[in-house]
Amino acid sequence: MSTVQGKVTLLSAGPGDLDLLTLRAAKALAAADILLLDDLANADIATLAPNARVIRVGKRGGCKSTPQAFIQRLMQRHAKKGLHVVRVKGGDALLFGRAGEEIAALREAAIAVDIINGVSSGFAAAAGLGISLTHRDHCQGVTFVTAHMQDHSQPDWAALAATGTTLAIYMGMSRIASLTASLLETLPASTPAAVVQHAGSQQERRLVTTLDRLAEEATAAGLGSPAVILIGGAIGEAAGFAAHAETVEGFAHAA
Amino acid sequence: MSTVQGKVTLLSAGPGDLDLLTLRAAKALAAADILLLDDLANADIATLAPNARVIRVGKRGGCKSTPQAFIQRLMQRHAKKGLHVVRVKGGDALLFGRAGEEIAALREAAIAVDIINGVSSGFAAAAGLGISLTHRDHCQGVTFVTAHMQDHSQPDWAALAATGTTLAIYMGMSRIASLTASLLETLPASTPAAVVQHAGSQQERRLVTTLDRLAEEATAAGLGSPAVILIGGAIGEAAGFAAHAETVEGFAHAA
Repeated sequence: MSTVQGKVTLLSAGPGDLDLLTLRAAKALAAADILLLDDLANADIATLAPNARVIRVGKRGGCKSTPQAFIQRLMQRHAKKGLHVVRVKGGDALLFGRAGEEIAALREAAIAVDIINGVSSGFAAAAGLGISLTHRDHCQGVTFVTAHMQDHSQPDWAALAATGTTLAIYMGMSRIASLTASLLETLPASTPAAVVQHAGSQQERRLVTTLDRLAEEATAAGLGSPAVILIGGAIGEAAGFAAHAETVEGFAHAA
Repeated sequence: MSTVQGKVTLLSAGPGDLDLLTLRAAKALAAADILLLDDLANADIATLAPNARVIRVGKRGGCKSTPQAFIQRLMQRHAKKGLHVVRVKGGDALLFGRAGEEIAALREAAIAVDIINGVSSGFAAAAGLGISLTHRDHCQGVTFVTAHMQDHSQPDWAALAATGTTLAIYMGMSRIASLTASLLETLPASTPAAVVQHAGSQQERRLVTTLDRLAEEATAAGLGSPAVILIGGAIGEAAGFAAHAETVEGFAHAA
């Protein structure tokens, strides 16, 4: 048997605030021997893992501070020693992380993997705006899409817009001007749009406006990563939208 | 001032298991005076709200056991008495519920609303399959879509398929044959596909196969609502897919 006694838990840390962790996640953290911390996750999470050695393995945006292959080796090495390794990922581990590759490698090495779900920041962004991601008057669903693609190409914005779903765009702030320009080729200028930075944390900042004004206003307000961009009719239900691009609580409007 | 002292919390109960509730949700339940329970939520959640009077307001599928307008009135009546009303919804309250309408009505009535996020069943379904909803080798995102539309029409399956995102289809089991047939007009027959019934609960059952065989195999296996249907390249990473439509743990294959 090549099976080892240790295991790896891929743990979703949620959008930021520690009380948005699940009860199951809190339990796994309490039992962790090794904590691998992504830098999109709230570092205070370590306070919930009093017995764990904490290893930071952040990899923000394009800057690859800890190569993926090294993280994989770290997880396996400690699990093979019989330890409980908890790999913490921001949001839900199963959206836009490298969880798929990590699970495959662990499976290959006959190491047990647990997955603990969490709240993805797109949901927290909607909660911050006081809206639902879907609204039966406006759409039949929501698409979570990353603007940061492996080969540096752009997603097919026309195809995404054609679905009529709410768009929740992750990792889009560095190209907000070009992606909104692409969407404006398909969607009306008046389409409701929002940016929520640091969704689900104490630092949350929100902007609600229309698609044609989104890039300019977000830049003027100094909004940057990490943030979720939300676009679609359902966003028009936000209290701030009635006043059209008016300041919503959370920051002073710079325009 | 028309503002009242009571409040309503829209609380996401997650997919089923109580330990998939967030810490914040557990706190709100402990402080609840009135608990309005959806029947997609785990009824055991009431054990976490020892001081609350429990009112069941289920509304499964097409059968409207408690009309939406009545639920709205219930929430408002109790909140106006100064009580803390917790409205429990399965999954995340901000996806495919009527949260948008409920928030609007409460705002109109000057009643404070808190929203507490949770784990949507699509994420739990992916965890059950041991896969990520997105995988950079396969797709740039995931679309959550309901097959159950307000006007009984079908979503635009061709447009959804054209995005190349993973599709996570909610409330689709009653029309699984027609929706897979529609998707097959755009997607290859060999597209990986899965059904996860009761995702994230002890009763979870899973099937992994290809799009062309999905409806027949799901029916043969007796899989029904509530379930999430997952379709796309990323689903091919599931351990069960290698063996192609082979039994995956959770139930005996009926075909």
